[in-house]
Amino acid sequence: MNRKIFNIFSIGFVKRDKDGIFVQINESYRPALKQLDSFSHVIVVWWADKFDNDKNRSILQCAPPYAKDKVTGVFASRSPQRPNPVSITTCKILDVNQEKGLIKIENIDAFDETPVIDLKAYFPVTDRVREPKIPEWLTNWPEWFPDGGIGLED
Amino acid sequence: MNRKIFNIFSIGFVKRDKDGIFVQINESYRPALKQLDSFSHVIVVWWADKFDNDKNRSILQCAPPYAKDKVTGVFASRSPQRPNPVSITTCKILDVNQEKGLIKIENIDAFDETPVIDLKAYFPVTDRVREPKIPEWLTNWPEWFPDGGIGLED
Repeated sequence: MNRKIFNIFSIGFVKRDKDGIFVQINESYRPALKQLDSFSHVIVVWWADKFDNDKNRSILQCAPPYAKDKVTGVFASRSPQRPNPVSITTCKILDVNQEKGLIKIENIDAFDETPVIDLKAYFPVTDRVREPKIPEWLTNWPEWFPDGGIGLED
Repeated sequence: MNRKIFNIFSIGFVKRDKDGIFVQINESYRPALKQLDSFSHVIVVWWADKFDNDKNRSILQCAPPYAKDKVTGVFASRSPQRPNPVSITTCKILDVNQEKGLIKIENIDAFDETPVIDLKAYFPVTDRVREPKIPEWLTNWPEWFPDGGIGLED
């Protein structure tokens, strides 16, 4: 089957300032935030715009930072260097202000002004695997999403 | 900040046949599958192409099937009717054939021939939340990803 191309657009962006870390949603999409405040976590889908170039989008294998001696395919990693630089980060929700379009989150591994393309409430039934298996070279990693979230420093 | 538009393209597609349910990866991307077979689960990122039209992409609120009396924002739901019809489904991996570009999966809530745009190995540290909170009208749902996966019938 041939390659198909689709248009994806930003619905907002990551905002980092002295008051914390936020997802700022464009005004026209704010009604889509209704009820998000009844969830503790949200999956932020964002576009790794700094890696959106032909070179990075042609990278298929990498030596991940957590296992530098292991060459893995990018589909077995969370590297932002991949054919489509779509990233997903689970984030703890601290506050939702629907009127202002601001979701205050605990942390995210995206830079200030990174385009956000979707938000999805975290559902245990779809997202929480009871006994996931990972390769032995990753077993020194935490078994759960950390309280402080996943940030740029991780 | 203004809306930005990005190009996303299919790297493969969902394949349903008498032998099971597969993600078929286009030949040029198959090196990116290396090591995926050392994980039990993969997050399949797919494009809900049947909902990729102006009408469905303008829907911001819905009455989800699991709570028909509740109007929620689409960002608080997993509806495929949303501004960017990007879907993510966690799938149990049954087999990875890198040479043929075939990942056999237990289940997925996507139709045959649905475009796939990314694969990400499921990492407990990024994806598994110990105590997620959900609204009370969802508390009769399973607390864990089911053994049989998430399929079209769910």
